[in-house]
Amino acid sequence: MILALEIERLADCSGTQLPRTTIDALKNLHPSDIAEALETSGCSPSQLVEILFQIGNHKSCDAFAQLDIETQQACLEATHAQTMLRFVENMEPDDRVDLLKAVDEDVREAIMPLIAQAERNDIRRLWNYAEGTAGAAMTTEYAVLPQHVTVAEALEQMRLQAPNKETIYTIHITDSQRRLLGILSLRDLIMSKPRITLDAIMQTRVISVPHDMAEEDVAAVIAKYDLLAVPVVDGDNRLLGIITVDDVIDIMEAENTEDFQRISAVVPFDEGYFKRPLPQLFWSRFLWLAVLLFTSLLSTTIMEMNSAVIHQMVALAFFIPMVTGTCGNAGTQSATMVVRALALGEVGPGDFLRVFRRELFMGLALGMTLGLMAYFRVYLQDQNMLLGWTVGVALLATLLTANLTGALMPLVLKKLRLDPALTAGPFIATVIDAVGISLYFQIAMLLMNVMK
Amino acid sequence: MILALEIERLADCSGTQLPRTTIDALKNLHPSDIAEALETSGCSPSQLVEILFQIGNHKSCDAFAQLDIETQQACLEATHAQTMLRFVENMEPDDRVDLLKAVDEDVREAIMPLIAQAERNDIRRLWNYAEGTAGAAMTTEYAVLPQHVTVAEALEQMRLQAPNKETIYTIHITDSQRRLLGILSLRDLIMSKPRITLDAIMQTRVISVPHDMAEEDVAAVIAKYDLLAVPVVDGDNRLLGIITVDDVIDIMEAENTEDFQRISAVVPFDEGYFKRPLPQLFWSRFLWLAVLLFTSLLSTTIMEMNSAVIHQMVALAFFIPMVTGTCGNAGTQSATMVVRALALGEVGPGDFLRVFRRELFMGLALGMTLGLMAYFRVYLQDQNMLLGWTVGVALLATLLTANLTGALMPLVLKKLRLDPALTAGPFIATVIDAVGISLYFQIAMLLMNVMK
Repeated sequence: MILALEIERLADCSGTQLPRTTIDALKNLHPSDIAEALETSGCSPSQLVEILFQIGNHKSCDAFAQLDIETQQACLEATHAQTMLRFVENMEPDDRVDLLKAVDEDVREAIMPLIAQAERNDIRRLWNYAEGTAGAAMTTEYAVLPQHVTVAEALEQMRLQAPNKETIYTIHITDSQRRLLGILSLRDLIMSKPRITLDAIMQTRVISVPHDMAEEDVAAVIAKYDLLAVPVVDGDNRLLGIITVDDVIDIMEAENTEDFQRISAVVPFDEGYFKRPLPQLFWSRFLWLAVLLFTSLLSTTIMEMNSAVIHQMVALAFFIPMVTGTCGNAGTQSATMVVRALALGEVGPGDFLRVFRRELFMGLALGMTLGLMAYFRVYLQDQNMLLGWTVGVALLATLLTANLTGALMPLVLKKLRLDPALTAGPFIATVIDAVGISLYFQIAMLLMNVMK
Repeated sequence: MILALEIERLADCSGTQLPRTTIDALKNLHPSDIAEALETSGCSPSQLVEILFQIGNHKSCDAFAQLDIETQQACLEATHAQTMLRFVENMEPDDRVDLLKAVDEDVREAIMPLIAQAERNDIRRLWNYAEGTAGAAMTTEYAVLPQHVTVAEALEQMRLQAPNKETIYTIHITDSQRRLLGILSLRDLIMSKPRITLDAIMQTRVISVPHDMAEEDVAAVIAKYDLLAVPVVDGDNRLLGIITVDDVIDIMEAENTEDFQRISAVVPFDEGYFKRPLPQLFWSRFLWLAVLLFTSLLSTTIMEMNSAVIHQMVALAFFIPMVTGTCGNAGTQSATMVVRALALGEVGPGDFLRVFRRELFMGLALGMTLGLMAYFRVYLQDQNMLLGWTVGVALLATLLTANLTGALMPLVLKKLRLDPALTAGPFIATVIDAVGISLYFQIAMLLMNVMK
């Protein structure tokens, strides 16, 4: 309620200072809510920066960190580097690198020299990890201790480290070369006797991830082992950073959005629904639709090639939408189930044969029951046994093909290191349509010869 | 690697004891990995219980807690209640209630009297929350303190509470009526001076959720505010339990799986891909396919009604798959985007007009460009201007309809408190097919009259 009111007032701000009461109301909100209010306010980037300054020190920095990267970028590009410094310095290291990668080069060059040396080194370290890998998603602000300190000393150290670390609930124990020896939860630390040294109580079987692991696989690791954070290491088991569970939730949401977009043939994009500018959205959608339009003309061509058969029995054309529609649906069903099972790690490319057997059986069962239903619908209404057989048999054959293709293609794509979600999309469906129509006519001609 | 070996050896176990080395190898695994090994082993439920006993005390209990609920249920139903008691007592309260709800009534009645009084009361408390609500997903093992204790006393208390609580990283401060006064992170507790009392440092603006909130909305709250746990309260702000971030990840995964299933017209089910028994899977798929088969016969009926027009120009039939296919794809695009935006909270039912304007414009732009492409394809290849106009105009009109229906139906369903993902599915697509074919013939007849 209060939020909605604030947004309305903010939307009215045209250049002038905001009233004191609005700023006070904003100050009382959670940083995530301030960010949401600012983003929906319709204010210009320089106005947003102005409002952040009025909100004041720490909360405004946290609110800035919660803004979308596009809004952050606009703010940075609209204001002097010196003004934005404190907001950028307060960001989490991984988000800061993403932002600096996104802004114009001259903006980046203006702000980089102002950033403190230590942070600047940190930025350079993170800069080179490829987008979408563990290295690019990790933060370097983790809690770390050597192995020979006592529990009492460790607690004192955590008191000191806490303000600058993303989490102190997982403590990393490394040697002088930064190699990861073990981890310890703050919970275990608190429960241990003060004089014990950490090497006696740390967990040495550490679940860690390599820096080049795909971020969605990192998410799967955190989900599987119910972790609050997972350490990221290099080839020598040296600790590079950590990925925390809140980042994993964001990764999962982005990954799911991308899968949904792929399934529905939208070229994936990151912005929210209303954020994506219309011209770009048009292209994201148009490109795929145009490709699919041409693919679907395959069906037209096949029908043109068979126009003699259609002239002989026009009713054949009437049942094409039913055959292709039903088989497309069956293919989408099996594809989506396998794509999802792959994403959750329940099925791997090695399960090819098991999936094949399962879907062969399922395709036969569905094809025969649905084919029988279609046969009776055609035969009873049109009294045309030839047409009934054609429709029924074509439905069985096409459904079997569609079901197997839908289930097995994601496994093939996974093996080729492509995104399996591409298959669940309409491209395969359109190709299967053409295959189905082609089968349909061949079966029709075969049966015409046999039955006449 | 080691895991795969274990599984193979486990799969061979036919009634006899497992070799010592296998058990030792299992003992060295993480409980999640033990559970995974057991589930893929193909052993019978009573064999699984046997293996768990050989693994021994605490780790076997944690491994049991990580098994799928179906496997847990099978173990419980295959063994004496007394044997299973320690496994059941060790489970998290919310999972335990889910399991007890799933098992046969006589199994439940055998085990309930054996469970300790306190736990039994807890089970009764949780029993009545409706599935899918915050109340059913919460755990009652949270850390709680009164407001007047000092930081030093609180740390000592946490040391004592830690072994029995799901998390001690969020500490809840309540009054004598269990009303939630504030929360405090263990991090802040550690950083505070020992003599201060908690009421001076606790956060009093607490983000909490009501017990009847849908679990996916709880997940959205945790994701938005980057929380490790969120308190669940009743109407009087009394603390009932907490929901932790690892449960939220499971909720998100289940929710996304359900959305994918809805989109691909599979009646939603919980089990993994290989876990779902074939007969049930058949029905999950067959029911929807049969409904869609009959819906798609609408298209057949419309074509039958227009068979006179088709006889006049058979080529009309050839372009139907292209028109319906392209429009179906456009409708799926807009539906999926809006469903996803609804799930992420970017769009609400109140945005009806904004979405309408956006998709009206987008539908016109896509319809005109794609319609023009189709027109040229038909005109250049078939030299038939009437057919070209029919296909082009029908594509524009149907695409506009499909795009708007796809985008607006999810908003309507959300308003009606139904799952918006239902729309992105093929049911709407099949209906739009019929509408498209109907429009196609009307436009064809109109143009035939005009152009002849």
